Amino acid sequence: MLFFTQCFGAVLDLIHLRFQHYKAKRVFSAAGQLVCVVNPTHSLKYAPTLCAAAQTSTEQGILPPCHHHEAVHDPQLVPCMCPLFSCPWEGHLEVVVSHLRQTHHINILQGAEIVFLATDMHLPAPTDWIIMHSCLGHQFLLVLRKQEKYEGHPQFFATMMLIGTPTQADNFTYRLELNRNQRRLKWEATPRSVLECVDSVISDGDCLVLNTSLAQLFSDNGSLAIGIAITTSKVHNSEAEM
Amino acid sequence: MLFFTQCFGAVLDLIHLRFQHYKAKRVFSAAGQLVCVVNPTHSLKYAPTLCAAAQTSTEQGILPPCHHHEAVHDPQLVPCMCPLFSCPWEGHLEVVVSHLRQTHHINILQGAEIVFLATDMHLPAPTDWIIMHSCLGHQFLLVLRKQEKYEGHPQFFATMMLIGTPTQADNFTYRLELNRNQRRLKWEATPRSVLECVDSVISDGDCLVLNTSLAQLFSDNGSLAIGIAITTSKVHNSEAEM
Repeated sequence: MLFFTQCFGAVLDLIHLRFQHYKAKRVFSAAGQLVCVVNPTHSLKYAPTLCAAAQTSTEQGILPPCHHHEAVHDPQLVPCMCPLFSCPWEGHLEVVVSHLRQTHHINILQGAEIVFLATDMHLPAPTDWIIMHSCLGHQFLLVLRKQEKYEGHPQFFATMMLIGTPTQADNFTYRLELNRNQRRLKWEATPRSVLECVDSVISDGDCLVLNTSLAQLFSDNGSLAIGIAITTSKVHNSEAEM
Repeated sequence: MLFFTQCFGAVLDLIHLRFQHYKAKRVFSAAGQLVCVVNPTHSLKYAPTLCAAAQTSTEQGILPPCHHHEAVHDPQLVPCMCPLFSCPWEGHLEVVVSHLRQTHHINILQGAEIVFLATDMHLPAPTDWIIMHSCLGHQFLLVLRKQEKYEGHPQFFATMMLIGTPTQADNFTYRLELNRNQRRLKWEATPRSVLECVDSVISDGDCLVLNTSLAQLFSDNGSLAIGIAITTSKVHNSEAEM
């Protein structure tokens, strides 16, 4: 009997997953887009001390690279970028991807355009949704975070980071797109490097920011579909002049 | 001597204005776009009681039409939409435009695509920047507001409203676009009718929302250029299905 109950549960889960995929595909109807269902994890590592120095200076409007562990002397050493755990790991850029996959079981997706379907948006802050995205010969980390910057008013912050150096990151542009309920919101920017700090990017608000009511308007049954595209950046003449 | 000083001041102002136009045109380089420099006005009518009922119900996630003055029984009667003044005027839709032009000296611009250049973004909240936009046979009202939803944390809210009925508004889509510093933010939505309430749209956050640091990143020398485009809306298949 228990066996049948479990089987039935598994079938229901599969149907639910299939249905979520279908919905996300319907929203972003471009052919060949990969839909990734991303489950939330309640953040244990909230407002980490790692980036305290960076956060203080960014509040004054400057965007310095993040100062990591005081003990880190090699600037190419990255502390664990996964904001989900207070993970003591640190290592070189080359092994960040395998650490995130193996230790934190973060999925990695292939393809220039994918749909990130974050489930259970109603969960209380702090909560994170994370995937890695392999594209154009590099790996990127997409972080969606629900956080209460102002007490009692949770907001959603989404940003993309290159698992590479700031110089490499400058070669790319990422786009995050929400599209539902006759509203469309697009954010385009150069990804930051994971050598900078995801926490300072988010506390800065230099990313896609959604308040709860907008997030509700863009959500479907508690899930938020974010279309992601990465391109190699072309320097716009108008911007280059500035 | 005073005459020469004043003349010199006027010439400096003209040069400054010309320079701002030039900068805005450089950001939005599409040919034929009209640039409108919009000066701020410190809002005297802040958190008006007009919309208190609507705000309470929208906090619960519903978006009702705004309940205007208790004394208004004709639903087509609009109280003065200009958020700058606690203006006791109310009248029918047909005379809203002439009231805003004549009494509040709000500019009206022609053209499908214009650039709204809001100056002096550093001024303290509450502050408004307003223009009217005549396009596709209708008049629209663009409101940019700096407001402290959370004390000590001013945010910018931008929305477009049709000076017409909600049914007429459903036929259009407006787009607001910011583009600077290798970042681009686009908001597309159906305009709301001025029969609804600009205050409730903004308190809802159902509009383009910018925190101060993002507004700084998109600003140039204290001025924020917002590209505006209005089109007749096409019902997207994917959205129609939902």
